[in-house]
Amino acid sequence: MHLTSETGSDGVVQRRFVVDGVPGVLWLPASSEPSEPSEPSDGPERSEPGGRPLVLLGHGGGQHKTAPGVVERARRCVTRYGYAAVALDAPGHGERNRSAQDERFATEIGELLAAGRPISAWVARHTAALAERAVPEWRAVLDALGAIGEGLGPVGYWGLSLGSVVGIPLAAAEPRITAAVFGLTGLTGQTSPTEAAGRVGVPLRFLLQWDDELVPREAALALFGALGSREKTLHANPGGHEAVPDFELASSERFLCRRLRPGAGA
Amino acid sequence: MHLTSETGSDGVVQRRFVVDGVPGVLWLPASSEPSEPSEPSDGPERSEPGGRPLVLLGHGGGQHKTAPGVVERARRCVTRYGYAAVALDAPGHGERNRSAQDERFATEIGELLAAGRPISAWVARHTAALAERAVPEWRAVLDALGAIGEGLGPVGYWGLSLGSVVGIPLAAAEPRITAAVFGLTGLTGQTSPTEAAGRVGVPLRFLLQWDDELVPREAALALFGALGSREKTLHANPGGHEAVPDFELASSERFLCRRLRPGAGA
Repeated sequence: MHLTSETGSDGVVQRRFVVDGVPGVLWLPASSEPSEPSEPSDGPERSEPGGRPLVLLGHGGGQHKTAPGVVERARRCVTRYGYAAVALDAPGHGERNRSAQDERFATEIGELLAAGRPISAWVARHTAALAERAVPEWRAVLDALGAIGEGLGPVGYWGLSLGSVVGIPLAAAEPRITAAVFGLTGLTGQTSPTEAAGRVGVPLRFLLQWDDELVPREAALALFGALGSREKTLHANPGGHEAVPDFELASSERFLCRRLRPGAGA
Repeated sequence: MHLTSETGSDGVVQRRFVVDGVPGVLWLPASSEPSEPSEPSDGPERSEPGGRPLVLLGHGGGQHKTAPGVVERARRCVTRYGYAAVALDAPGHGERNRSAQDERFATEIGELLAAGRPISAWVARHTAALAERAVPEWRAVLDALGAIGEGLGPVGYWGLSLGSVVGIPLAAAEPRITAAVFGLTGLTGQTSPTEAAGRVGVPLRFLLQWDDELVPREAALALFGALGSREKTLHANPGGHEAVPDFELASSERFLCRRLRPGAGA
Protein backbone atom coordinates (compact mmCIF):
# COMPACT_ATOMS: atom_id res chain seq x y z
CA MET A 1 0.00 0.00 0.00
CA HIS A 2 1.58 3.22 -1.20
CA LEU A 3 0.33 6.37 0.57
CA THR A 4 0.10 9.29 -1.86
CA SER A 5 -1.44 12.07 0.26
CA GLU A 6 -3.09 12.80 3.58
CA THR A 7 -5.52 15.60 4.40
CA GLY A 8 -7.82 16.17 7.32
CA SER A 9 -10.87 18.26 8.13
CA ASP A 10 -13.69 18.26 10.68
CA GLY A 11 -12.44 15.21 12.50
CA VAL A 12 -11.88 13.07 9.40
CA VAL A 13 -8.50 12.07 7.97
CA GLN A 14 -8.52 11.28 4.24
CA ARG A 15 -5.61 9.20 2.92
CA ARG A 16 -5.14 8.57 -0.76
CA PHE A 17 -3.27 5.38 -1.59
CA VAL A 18 -2.39 3.02 -4.42
CA VAL A 19 -2.42 -0.80 -4.16
CA ASP A 20 -1.13 -2.73 -7.18
CA GLY A 21 -1.84 0.25 -9.42
CA VAL A 22 -5.39 0.76 -8.10
CA PRO A 23 -5.98 4.18 -6.55
CA GLY A 24 -8.16 4.41 -3.46
CA VAL A 25 -9.07 6.59 -0.50
CA LEU A 26 -9.23 5.65 3.17
CA TRP A 27 -11.20 7.78 5.63
CA LEU A 28 -10.49 7.52 9.36
CA PRO A 29 -11.43 9.31 12.57
CA ALA A 30 -8.83 12.02 13.23
CA SER A 31 -8.88 11.24 16.95
CA SER A 32 -7.86 7.66 16.41
CA GLU A 33 -4.98 7.31 14.01
CA PRO A 34 -4.54 3.77 12.77
CA SER A 35 -1.52 2.09 14.24
CA GLU A 36 1.07 0.01 12.55
CA PRO A 37 0.75 -3.67 13.46
CA SER A 38 3.83 -3.16 15.63
CA GLU A 39 1.90 -0.70 17.86
CA PRO A 40 -1.33 -2.39 18.91
CA SER A 41 -3.84 -0.93 21.42
CA ASP A 42 -2.87 2.68 20.73
CA GLY A 43 -5.88 4.77 21.79
CA PRO A 44 -9.32 3.84 23.09
CA GLU A 45 -10.97 2.94 19.75
CA ARG A 46 -8.17 0.48 19.10
CA SER A 47 -9.30 -1.58 22.06
CA GLU A 48 -12.45 -2.77 20.25
CA PRO A 49 -12.30 -6.56 19.95
CA GLY A 50 -11.28 -7.45 16.43
CA GLY A 51 -10.73 -3.84 15.44
CA ARG A 52 -12.65 -0.88 14.11
CA PRO A 53 -15.51 -1.56 11.65
CA LEU A 54 -14.74 -0.74 8.01
CA VAL A 55 -17.20 0.20 5.28
CA LEU A 56 -16.28 -0.53 1.66
CA LEU A 57 -17.92 1.96 -0.70
CA GLY A 58 -18.50 0.88 -4.30
CA HIS A 59 -19.29 3.76 -6.65
CA GLY A 60 -21.78 3.77 -9.50
CA GLY A 61 -20.98 3.57 -13.21
CA GLY A 62 -19.26 6.70 -14.54
CA GLN A 63 -18.49 7.86 -11.00
CA HIS A 64 -15.30 7.46 -9.00
CA LYS A 65 -13.83 7.08 -5.51
CA THR A 66 -14.28 10.75 -4.57
CA ALA A 67 -17.66 11.43 -6.19
CA PRO A 68 -19.67 13.66 -3.80
CA GLY A 69 -22.05 10.89 -2.69
CA VAL A 70 -19.13 8.57 -1.90
CA VAL A 71 -17.23 11.16 0.12
CA GLU A 72 -20.32 12.25 2.07
CA ARG A 73 -21.20 8.67 2.94
CA ALA A 74 -17.60 7.93 3.96
CA ARG A 75 -17.47 11.00 6.22
CA ARG A 76 -20.75 10.05 7.90
CA CYS A 77 -19.41 6.54 8.60
CA VAL A 78 -16.43 8.15 10.31
CA THR A 79 -18.11 11.02 12.18
CA ARG A 80 -21.35 9.30 13.23
CA TYR A 81 -20.01 5.84 13.98
CA GLY A 82 -16.25 6.15 14.39
CA TYR A 83 -15.71 3.64 11.59
CA ALA A 84 -13.19 3.62 8.76
CA ALA A 85 -14.33 3.76 5.13
CA VAL A 86 -12.59 3.02 1.87
CA ALA A 87 -13.34 3.57 -1.81
CA LEU A 88 -11.49 2.52 -4.97
CA ASP A 89 -11.70 3.68 -8.55
CA ALA A 90 -13.34 0.84 -10.47
CA PRO A 91 -11.52 -0.30 -13.65
CA GLY A 92 -11.78 2.39 -16.32
CA HIS A 93 -13.09 4.96 -13.81
CA GLY A 94 -11.71 8.01 -12.02
CA GLU A 95 -7.93 8.32 -12.21
CA ARG A 96 -7.50 4.97 -13.94
CA ASN A 97 -6.61 4.53 -17.56
CA ARG A 98 -9.32 3.23 -19.81
CA SER A 99 -8.55 -0.05 -21.52
CA ALA A 100 -9.44 -0.55 -25.19
CA GLN A 101 -12.51 -2.39 -23.88
CA ASP A 102 -13.48 0.58 -21.69
CA GLU A 103 -13.06 2.97 -24.63
CA ARG A 104 -15.17 0.76 -26.84
CA PHE A 105 -17.87 0.70 -24.17
CA ALA A 106 -17.88 4.49 -23.80
CA THR A 107 -18.19 4.93 -27.57
CA GLU A 108 -20.82 2.28 -28.09
CA ILE A 109 -23.03 3.28 -25.17
CA GLY A 110 -23.03 6.82 -26.56
CA GLU A 111 -24.13 5.50 -29.93
CA LEU A 112 -26.89 3.37 -28.39
CA LEU A 113 -28.16 6.30 -26.33
CA ALA A 114 -28.05 8.62 -29.36
CA ALA A 115 -30.04 6.07 -31.34
CA GLY A 116 -32.56 5.77 -28.51
CA ARG A 117 -31.90 2.05 -28.23
CA PRO A 118 -32.12 0.05 -24.97
CA ILE A 119 -28.83 -0.11 -23.11
CA SER A 120 -29.59 -2.33 -20.14
CA ALA A 121 -28.30 -5.59 -21.63
CA TRP A 122 -25.22 -3.80 -22.96
CA VAL A 123 -24.53 -2.19 -19.57
CA ALA A 124 -24.97 -5.53 -17.81
CA ARG A 125 -22.49 -7.24 -20.13
CA HIS A 126 -19.86 -4.55 -19.76
CA THR A 127 -20.18 -4.14 -16.01
CA ALA A 128 -20.00 -7.91 -15.50
CA ALA A 129 -16.65 -7.93 -17.30
CA LEU A 130 -15.55 -4.98 -15.20
CA ALA A 131 -16.52 -6.76 -11.97
CA GLU A 132 -14.27 -9.68 -12.84
CA ARG A 133 -11.37 -7.25 -12.74
CA ALA A 134 -12.60 -5.32 -9.67
CA VAL A 135 -13.18 -8.21 -7.24
CA PRO A 136 -9.50 -9.25 -6.87
CA GLU A 137 -8.57 -5.56 -6.58
CA TRP A 138 -10.88 -5.12 -3.58
CA ARG A 139 -9.51 -8.27 -1.97
CA ALA A 140 -5.92 -7.05 -2.40
CA VAL A 141 -6.89 -3.74 -0.78
CA LEU A 142 -8.47 -5.57 2.17
CA ASP A 143 -5.21 -7.50 2.59
CA ALA A 144 -3.19 -4.28 2.43
CA LEU A 145 -5.47 -2.56 4.95
CA GLY A 146 -5.12 -5.51 7.30
CA ALA A 147 -1.38 -5.03 7.23
CA ILE A 148 -1.82 -1.46 8.58
CA GLY A 149 -4.35 -2.54 11.21
CA GLU A 150 -7.60 -1.61 9.41
CA GLY A 151 -10.38 -3.94 8.26
CA LEU A 152 -9.64 -6.40 11.08
CA GLY A 153 -13.06 -5.75 12.61
CA PRO A 154 -16.46 -6.21 10.94
CA VAL A 155 -16.46 -5.19 7.26
CA GLY A 156 -19.54 -3.96 5.43
CA TYR A 157 -20.06 -3.25 1.74
CA TRP A 158 -22.28 -0.44 0.39
CA GLY A 159 -22.73 -0.09 -3.36
CA LEU A 160 -25.60 0.40 -5.81
CA SER A 161 -25.77 -0.18 -9.57
CA LEU A 162 -22.17 -0.80 -10.73
CA GLY A 163 -21.33 -0.86 -7.01
CA SER A 164 -23.54 -3.95 -6.68
CA VAL A 165 -22.37 -5.61 -9.87
CA VAL A 166 -18.94 -5.54 -8.23
CA GLY A 167 -20.11 -5.98 -4.64
CA ILE A 168 -22.21 -9.11 -5.06
CA PRO A 169 -19.42 -11.37 -6.39
CA LEU A 170 -17.08 -9.70 -3.90
CA ALA A 171 -19.37 -10.52 -0.96
CA ALA A 172 -19.76 -14.06 -2.33
CA ALA A 173 -15.99 -14.54 -2.42
CA GLU A 174 -14.87 -12.55 0.61
CA PRO A 175 -15.62 -13.92 4.10
CA ARG A 176 -14.42 -10.70 5.75
CA ILE A 177 -17.64 -8.97 4.54
CA THR A 178 -20.38 -9.46 7.14
CA ALA A 179 -23.21 -7.17 5.93
CA ALA A 180 -24.08 -5.33 2.72
CA VAL A 181 -26.27 -2.84 0.91
CA PHE A 182 -26.97 -3.63 -2.74
CA GLY A 183 -29.47 -2.52 -5.37
CA LEU A 184 -30.19 -0.92 -8.75
CA THR A 185 -29.06 -3.98 -10.64
CA GLY A 186 -30.59 -7.26 -11.73
CA LEU A 187 -30.07 -10.84 -12.79
CA THR A 188 -29.11 -10.70 -16.43
CA GLY A 189 -28.30 -14.24 -17.43
CA GLN A 190 -25.19 -16.34 -17.63
CA THR A 191 -22.74 -13.57 -18.47
CA SER A 192 -23.45 -11.77 -15.22
CA PRO A 193 -21.41 -12.09 -12.04
CA THR A 194 -24.74 -12.00 -10.25
CA GLU A 195 -24.69 -15.77 -10.62
CA ALA A 196 -22.68 -15.32 -7.44
CA ALA A 197 -25.86 -14.08 -5.75
CA GLY A 198 -26.75 -17.47 -4.32
CA ARG A 199 -23.40 -17.65 -2.54
CA VAL A 200 -23.99 -14.36 -0.70
CA GLY A 201 -25.05 -15.20 2.83
CA VAL A 202 -24.70 -11.98 4.83
CA PRO A 203 -27.57 -9.82 6.12
CA LEU A 204 -28.36 -7.26 3.46
CA ARG A 205 -30.61 -4.45 2.29
CA PHE A 206 -31.52 -4.34 -1.42
CA LEU A 207 -32.77 -1.10 -3.01
CA LEU A 208 -35.00 -1.19 -6.09
CA GLN A 209 -36.40 1.70 -8.10
CA TRP A 210 -39.85 0.76 -9.40
CA ASP A 211 -39.44 2.75 -12.63
CA ASP A 212 -35.73 2.07 -13.21
CA GLU A 213 -35.01 2.82 -16.85
CA LEU A 214 -31.70 0.92 -16.80
CA VAL A 215 -32.67 -2.19 -14.84
CA PRO A 216 -35.79 -4.17 -15.77
CA ARG A 217 -37.95 -4.60 -12.66
CA GLU A 218 -38.23 -8.35 -13.15
CA ALA A 219 -34.44 -8.67 -13.32
CA ALA A 220 -33.99 -6.75 -10.07
CA LEU A 221 -36.67 -8.80 -8.30
CA ALA A 222 -35.10 -12.00 -9.61
CA LEU A 223 -31.73 -10.91 -8.23
CA PHE A 224 -33.22 -10.16 -4.82
CA GLY A 225 -34.84 -13.59 -4.87
CA ALA A 226 -31.57 -15.26 -5.86
CA LEU A 227 -29.47 -13.73 -3.09
CA GLY A 228 -28.68 -16.54 -0.67
CA SER A 229 -28.97 -14.53 2.54
CA ARG A 230 -31.55 -15.60 5.07
CA GLU A 231 -31.81 -12.02 6.31
CA LYS A 232 -32.47 -9.78 3.34
CA THR A 233 -34.92 -6.95 2.87
CA LEU A 234 -36.01 -5.33 -0.37
CA HIS A 235 -36.96 -1.64 -0.30
CA ALA A 236 -38.67 -0.38 -3.45
CA ASN A 237 -39.71 3.18 -4.26
CA PRO A 238 -41.26 4.85 -7.29
CA GLY A 239 -38.91 6.64 -9.68
CA GLY A 240 -35.99 6.05 -12.00
CA HIS A 241 -32.44 4.79 -11.58
CA GLU A 242 -31.08 8.08 -10.25
CA ALA A 243 -34.05 8.90 -8.02
CA VAL A 244 -33.45 6.79 -4.91
CA PRO A 245 -35.05 8.88 -2.13
CA ASP A 246 -32.65 10.49 0.33
CA PHE A 247 -34.45 8.86 3.27
CA GLU A 248 -33.81 5.46 1.69
CA LEU A 249 -30.09 6.11 1.27
CA ALA A 250 -29.88 7.33 4.87
CA SER A 251 -31.79 4.28 6.08
CA SER A 252 -29.49 1.92 4.18
CA GLU A 253 -26.46 3.57 5.76
CA ARG A 254 -27.94 3.16 9.26
CA PHE A 255 -28.79 -0.46 8.49
CA LEU A 256 -25.23 -1.24 7.44
CA CYS A 257 -23.48 0.63 10.23
CA ARG A 258 -25.71 -0.82 12.95
CA ARG A 259 -25.22 -4.31 11.55
CA LEU A 260 -21.45 -3.92 11.89
CA ARG A 261 -21.69 -2.95 15.56
CA PRO A 262 -25.12 -3.38 17.19
CA GLY A 263 -26.22 -0.25 18.99
CA ALA A 264 -23.83 1.98 17.03
CA GLY A 265 -24.98 5.52 16.30
CA ALA A 266 -28.17 5.02 18.35
CA MET B 1 -71.58 5.81 19.90
CA HIS B 2 -72.60 3.66 22.83
CA LEU B 3 -69.90 3.24 25.48
CA THR B 4 -69.99 -0.28 26.95
CA SER B 5 -67.00 -0.33 29.31
CA GLU B 6 -63.93 1.59 30.34
CA THR B 7 -60.73 0.22 31.85
CA GLY B 8 -57.31 1.71 32.35
CA SER B 9 -53.78 0.53 32.99
CA ASP B 10 -50.26 1.87 32.65
CA GLY B 11 -51.33 5.23 31.33
CA VAL B 12 -53.76 3.88 28.72
CA VAL B 13 -57.54 4.11 28.89
CA GLN B 14 -59.39 1.42 26.91
CA ARG B 15 -63.02 2.15 26.03
CA ARG B 16 -65.23 -0.45 24.42
CA PHE B 17 -68.05 0.96 22.32
CA VAL B 18 -70.69 0.04 19.77
CA VAL B 19 -71.58 2.13 16.70
CA ASP B 20 -74.55 0.97 14.62
CA GLY B 21 -74.13 -2.55 15.97
CA VAL B 22 -70.37 -2.70 15.28
CA PRO B 23 -68.25 -3.27 18.39
CA GLY B 24 -64.96 -1.42 18.71
CA VAL B 25 -62.28 -0.30 21.15
CA LEU B 26 -60.78 3.16 21.58
CA TRP B 27 -57.43 3.58 23.31
CA LEU B 28 -56.45 6.99 24.73
CA PRO B 29 -53.75 8.50 26.94
CA ALA B 30 -54.95 8.40 30.55
CA SER B 31 -53.49 11.83 31.17
CA SER B 32 -55.56 13.46 28.47
CA GLU B 33 -59.16 12.41 28.57
CA PRO B 34 -61.02 13.34 25.42
CA SER B 35 -63.45 16.17 25.95
CA GLU B 36 -66.98 16.49 24.75
CA PRO B 37 -67.28 19.02 21.92
CA SER B 38 -68.83 21.35 24.49
CA GLU B 39 -65.56 21.42 26.45
CA PRO B 40 -62.77 22.26 24.02
CA SER B 41 -59.12 22.88 25.01
CA ASP B 42 -59.29 20.73 28.13
CA GLY B 43 -55.70 19.74 28.89
CA PRO B 44 -52.43 20.42 27.09
CA GLU B 45 -52.71 17.70 24.40
CA ARG B 46 -56.05 19.16 23.38
CA SER B 47 -54.30 22.31 22.23
CA GLU B 48 -52.74 20.54 19.21
CA PRO B 49 -54.05 22.22 16.06
CA GLY B 50 -56.70 20.01 14.53
CA GLY B 51 -56.64 17.58 17.42
CA ARG B 52 -54.76 14.50 18.52
CA PRO B 53 -53.59 12.02 15.84
CA LEU B 54 -55.64 8.83 15.57
CA VAL B 55 -54.49 5.43 14.30
CA LEU B 56 -57.08 3.06 12.83
CA LEU B 57 -56.05 -0.56 13.34
CA GLY B 58 -57.44 -3.15 10.93
CA HIS B 59 -57.00 -6.73 12.14
CA GLY B 60 -56.14 -9.79 10.03
CA GLY B 61 -58.52 -12.53 8.91
CA GLY B 62 -59.74 -14.70 11.79
CA GLN B 63 -58.52 -12.14 14.34
CA HIS B 64 -60.48 -9.42 16.12
CA LYS B 65 -60.29 -5.96 17.69
CA THR B 66 -58.50 -7.13 20.83
CA ALA B 67 -56.15 -9.73 19.32
CA PRO B 68 -52.77 -9.41 21.11
CA GLY B 69 -51.00 -7.77 18.17
CA VAL B 70 -53.74 -5.16 17.82
CA VAL B 71 -53.81 -4.28 21.52
CA GLU B 72 -50.01 -4.04 21.75
CA ARG B 73 -49.84 -1.79 18.69
CA ALA B 74 -52.65 0.40 20.03
CA ARG B 75 -50.94 0.78 23.41
CA ARG B 76 -47.65 1.75 21.77
CA CYS B 77 -49.44 4.42 19.72
CA VAL B 78 -50.78 5.84 22.98
CA THR B 79 -47.76 5.50 25.25
CA ARG B 80 -44.98 6.34 22.76
CA TYR B 81 -46.72 9.05 20.77
CA GLY B 82 -49.67 10.25 22.85
CA TYR B 83 -52.05 9.33 20.02
CA ALA B 84 -55.46 7.70 20.10
CA ALA B 85 -56.05 4.32 18.45
CA VAL B 86 -59.19 2.48 17.47
CA ALA B 87 -60.02 -1.05 16.29
CA LEU B 88 -63.28 -2.63 15.14
CA ASP B 89 -64.37 -6.21 14.76
CA ALA B 90 -64.59 -6.83 11.01
CA PRO B 91 -67.85 -8.37 9.76
CA GLY B 92 -68.11 -11.99 10.91
CA HIS B 93 -65.18 -11.57 13.33
CA GLY B 94 -64.74 -11.21 17.10
CA GLU B 95 -67.97 -10.51 18.96
CA ARG B 96 -70.02 -10.14 15.79
CA ASN B 97 -72.54 -12.66 14.56
CA ARG B 98 -71.57 -14.61 11.49
CA SER B 99 -73.86 -14.19 8.52
CA ALA B 100 -74.88 -17.19 6.42
CA GLN B 101 -72.16 -16.00 4.01
CA ASP B 102 -69.55 -15.98 6.81
CA GLU B 103 -70.58 -19.46 7.93
CA ARG B 104 -70.36 -20.75 4.39
CA PHE B 105 -66.88 -19.27 4.10
CA ALA B 106 -65.68 -20.85 7.33
CA THR B 107 -66.98 -24.25 6.25
CA GLU B 108 -65.67 -24.08 2.72
CA ILE B 109 -62.22 -22.79 3.59
CA GLY B 110 -61.88 -25.68 6.03
CA GLU B 111 -62.79 -28.10 3.26
CA LEU B 112 -60.31 -26.54 0.83
CA LEU B 113 -57.51 -26.64 3.41
CA ALA B 114 -58.35 -30.27 4.30
CA ALA B 115 -58.20 -31.17 0.62
CA GLY B 116 -54.85 -29.37 0.26
CA ARG B 117 -56.30 -27.11 -2.43
CA PRO B 118 -55.20 -23.49 -3.03
CA ILE B 119 -57.24 -20.99 -1.05
CA SER B 120 -55.87 -17.62 -2.17
CA ALA B 121 -58.53 -16.90 -4.82
CA TRP B 122 -61.25 -18.04 -2.46
CA VAL B 123 -59.91 -15.87 0.37
CA ALA B 124 -59.64 -12.87 -1.97
CA ARG B 125 -63.24 -13.25 -3.10
CA HIS B 126 -64.62 -13.57 0.41
CA THR B 127 -62.55 -10.76 1.93
CA ALA B 128 -63.50 -8.42 -0.92
CA ALA B 129 -67.16 -8.98 -0.10
CA LEU B 130 -66.37 -8.43 3.56
CA ALA B 131 -64.58 -5.15 2.80
CA GLU B 132 -67.68 -3.81 1.08
CA ARG B 133 -69.46 -4.15 4.41
CA ALA B 134 -66.53 -2.90 6.54
CA VAL B 135 -65.74 0.38 4.75
CA PRO B 136 -69.00 2.19 5.65
CA GLU B 137 -68.67 0.86 9.21
CA TRP B 138 -65.25 2.47 9.60
CA ARG B 139 -66.56 5.74 8.17
CA ALA B 140 -69.48 5.76 10.61
CA VAL B 141 -67.06 5.19 13.50
CA LEU B 142 -64.89 8.09 12.31
CA ASP B 143 -68.01 10.28 12.31
CA ALA B 144 -68.95 9.10 15.81
CA LEU B 145 -65.41 9.70 17.11
CA GLY B 146 -65.47 13.21 15.65
CA ALA B 147 -68.58 13.92 17.69
CA ILE B 148 -66.65 13.15 20.90
CA GLY B 149 -63.61 15.16 19.81
CA GLU B 150 -61.37 12.34 18.51
CA GLY B 151 -60.13 11.81 14.97
CA LEU B 152 -60.17 15.55 14.23
CA GLY B 153 -56.38 15.56 13.80
CA PRO B 154 -54.36 13.49 11.32
CA VAL B 155 -55.69 9.95 10.87
CA GLY B 156 -53.54 6.98 9.89
CA TYR B 157 -54.53 3.44 8.95
CA TRP B 158 -52.48 0.35 9.82
CA GLY B 159 -53.65 -3.05 8.58
CA LEU B 160 -52.15 -6.09 6.85
CA SER B 161 -53.82 -8.93 4.97
CA LEU B 162 -57.58 -8.61 5.65
CA GLY B 163 -56.69 -5.29 7.29
CA SER B 164 -55.47 -4.08 3.87
CA VAL B 165 -58.33 -5.58 1.90
CA VAL B 166 -60.53 -3.33 4.06
CA GLY B 167 -58.06 -0.45 4.43
CA ILE B 168 -57.29 0.17 0.77
CA PRO B 169 -60.86 0.95 -0.32
CA LEU B 170 -61.32 2.81 2.97
CA ALA B 171 -58.29 5.02 2.31
CA ALA B 172 -59.51 5.54 -1.27
CA ALA B 173 -62.91 6.73 -0.03
CA GLU B 174 -62.00 8.55 3.17
CA PRO B 175 -60.19 11.91 2.93
CA ARG B 176 -59.60 11.99 6.70
CA ILE B 177 -56.92 9.27 6.29
CA THR B 178 -53.54 10.90 5.59
CA ALA B 179 -51.05 8.01 5.79
CA ALA B 180 -51.22 4.22 5.79
CA VAL B 181 -49.47 0.88 6.25
CA PHE B 182 -50.72 -1.92 4.02
CA GLY B 183 -49.45 -5.32 2.90
CA LEU B 184 -49.87 -9.09 2.69
CA THR B 185 -52.52 -8.83 0.02
CA GLY B 186 -52.56 -8.51 -3.75
CA LEU B 187 -54.46 -7.46 -6.84
CA THR B 188 -56.85 -10.27 -7.58
CA GLY B 189 -59.00 -9.15 -10.47
CA GLN B 190 -62.29 -7.36 -10.88
CA THR B 191 -64.04 -8.79 -7.83
CA SER B 192 -61.47 -7.24 -5.50
CA PRO B 193 -61.85 -3.92 -3.73
CA THR B 194 -58.20 -3.38 -4.53
CA GLU B 195 -59.44 -1.81 -7.75
CA ALA B 196 -59.61 1.17 -5.38
CA ALA B 197 -55.81 1.08 -5.18
CA GLY B 198 -55.33 3.71 -7.87
CA ARG B 199 -57.45 6.17 -5.90
CA VAL B 200 -55.25 5.89 -2.81
CA GLY B 201 -52.99 8.93 -2.72
CA VAL B 202 -51.55 9.08 0.78
CA PRO B 203 -47.94 8.29 1.75
CA LEU B 204 -47.75 4.61 2.56
CA ARG B 205 -45.59 1.64 3.48
CA PHE B 206 -46.42 -1.72 1.87
CA LEU B 207 -45.19 -4.98 3.42
CA LEU B 208 -44.68 -8.06 1.29
CA GLN B 209 -43.59 -11.54 2.34
CA TRP B 210 -41.47 -13.07 -0.42
CA ASP B 211 -42.71 -16.62 0.27
CA ASP B 212 -46.32 -15.75 1.15
CA GLU B 213 -48.35 -18.94 0.81
CA LEU B 214 -51.67 -17.05 0.72
CA VAL B 215 -50.81 -14.14 -1.59
CA PRO B 216 -49.08 -14.78 -4.94
CA ARG B 217 -45.98 -12.60 -5.15
CA GLU B 218 -46.97 -11.22 -8.54
CA ALA B 219 -50.37 -10.16 -7.18
CA ALA B 220 -48.80 -8.32 -4.25
CA LEU B 221 -46.26 -6.57 -6.52
CA ALA B 222 -49.06 -5.62 -8.91
CA LEU B 223 -51.03 -4.12 -6.05
CA PHE B 224 -48.04 -2.08 -4.89
CA GLY B 225 -47.61 -0.85 -8.45
CA ALA B 226 -51.30 0.04 -8.72
CA LEU B 227 -51.45 2.13 -5.56
CA GLY B 228 -51.82 5.75 -6.68
CA SER B 229 -49.59 7.31 -4.02
CA ARG B 230 -46.56 9.25 -5.14
CA GLU B 231 -44.82 8.41 -1.87
CA LYS B 232 -44.98 4.67 -1.36
CA THR B 233 -42.33 2.20 -0.27
CA LEU B 234 -42.39 -1.57 -0.56
CA HIS B 235 -40.55 -3.60 2.08
CA ALA B 236 -40.15 -7.29 1.25
CA ASN B 237 -38.65 -10.01 3.44
CA PRO B 238 -38.23 -13.76 3.06
CA GLY B 239 -40.81 -15.99 4.75
CA GLY B 240 -44.49 -16.81 4.74
CA HIS B 241 -47.68 -14.88 5.43
CA GLU B 242 -47.36 -15.04 9.21
CA ALA B 243 -43.61 -14.41 9.35
CA VAL B 244 -43.31 -10.63 8.96
CA PRO B 245 -40.15 -9.82 10.96
CA ASP B 246 -40.68 -7.93 14.21
CA PHE B 247 -38.28 -5.18 13.09
CA GLU B 248 -40.45 -4.62 10.03
CA LEU B 249 -43.64 -4.31 12.06
CA ALA B 250 -41.90 -1.88 14.42
CA SER B 251 -40.54 0.12 11.50
CA SER B 252 -43.98 0.35 9.89
CA GLU B 253 -45.44 1.65 13.15
CA ARG B 254 -42.74 4.34 13.39
CA PHE B 255 -43.33 5.28 9.76
CA LEU B 256 -47.06 5.76 10.32
CA CYS B 257 -46.81 7.61 13.62
CA ARG B 258 -44.10 9.97 12.39
CA ARG B 259 -46.08 10.67 9.24
CA LEU B 260 -49.03 11.77 11.35
CA ARG B 261 -46.94 14.26 13.32
CA PRO B 262 -43.41 14.89 12.02
CA GLY B 263 -40.82 14.51 14.76
CA ALA B 264 -43.13 12.46 16.98
CA GLY B 265 -41.53 9.77 19.14
CA ALA B 266 -38.06 10.86 17.98
